[in-house]
Amino acid sequence: MKETLVFATNNAHKLEEVAAMLGGRIELLSLRDIHCDADIPETGTTLEENALIKARYINEHYGTDCFADDTGLEVEALGGEPGVYSARYAGGPGHDSEANMRKLLARLEGVENRRARFRTVIALIRHGQTYEFEGIVEGHITTEPHGNGGFGYDPVFVPDGYDRTFAELGDVKNHISHRARAVERLAGFLLNEKGKKEM
Amino acid sequence: MKETLVFATNNAHKLEEVAAMLGGRIELLSLRDIHCDADIPETGTTLEENALIKARYINEHYGTDCFADDTGLEVEALGGEPGVYSARYAGGPGHDSEANMRKLLARLEGVENRRARFRTVIALIRHGQTYEFEGIVEGHITTEPHGNGGFGYDPVFVPDGYDRTFAELGDVKNHISHRARAVERLAGFLLNEKGKKEM
Repeated sequence: MKETLVFATNNAHKLEEVAAMLGGRIELLSLRDIHCDADIPETGTTLEENALIKARYINEHYGTDCFADDTGLEVEALGGEPGVYSARYAGGPGHDSEANMRKLLARLEGVENRRARFRTVIALIRHGQTYEFEGIVEGHITTEPHGNGGFGYDPVFVPDGYDRTFAELGDVKNHISHRARAVERLAGFLLNEKGKKEM
Repeated sequence: MKETLVFATNNAHKLEEVAAMLGGRIELLSLRDIHCDADIPETGTTLEENALIKARYINEHYGTDCFADDTGLEVEALGGEPGVYSARYAGGPGHDSEANMRKLLARLEGVENRRARFRTVIALIRHGQTYEFEGIVEGHITTEPHGNGGFGYDPVFVPDGYDRTFAELGDVKNHISHRARAVERLAGFLLNEKGKKEM
């Protein structure tokens, strides 16, 4: 029987992408598939904590194995800010990308060190054990936004090795992203837990 | 004590890159580090077999846990050729990139379906068990070479989402490559085997 895992998301595109990376060997269910419409509070102070809070919530309420992700932008000159608060950096109910970006650029005005990284953490709960998988993309923050694609801080983040922002890179972003890297690590773990064999 | 693994390579750059992806939590040794200068015969008929042959050789002769990789270009219209024979496609002792590319372009002359993928397989032997990790980059074959960077078939391979060949992409290739993806999967497995904890 195929193993079933809940991916704590309602983003159909994310679900499909991860399912493809698992080669169809694991059945993935979304929050919608398990009829979960809870607004799980992200009260952690690290990405690891938030991902684990979401995974634990599903595990405890639905009794299923599952994984959840959280992502943040970590700026070196700001001691890792906005980090876990990336989506609500400018205050308020959050997810105002414009306001968040403006605040970030304002805090970095005149600052020479523009180093930053996007970091995704996936927390997995499986057979009663917890695991963590990390994906990182290093880069720097521009002085003004470029490009309309992407979301969040994408218009001000240029990954190392490129001369365009994530917002300008379009599909390319999906190939190189912090999330893709974390998912590769998750896949390497899940597929080999299933596939290991004696010599 | 830190775990030690042999990476069956003498490419210092590859070793460093993989060590970095493992976050320094595992000590990597190269073939040189274990004083192995054997020319391990790659007699397998698949990438999986060749990677495993190399890993087994080290494991049997040196008694160490280890991993090895093999990479091939698989062209759809050619039924997966050159695949495991990528490095010696044009015959002879092999590794004549120019001759290999010429043969590939000749075989694809007038062929409309240019779909191809680079595939890396890593075989790991650890505590007497074997594991496999795969990394794939989908793309297409150009009608003539572009760019001088990279090696092998890089000047004729354009990865999906890009409009330049691997040879023209420079450092970008390292971010998106089949090998990087396979290594992410290996890292996800190794780090969580070490890091798993009870809830």
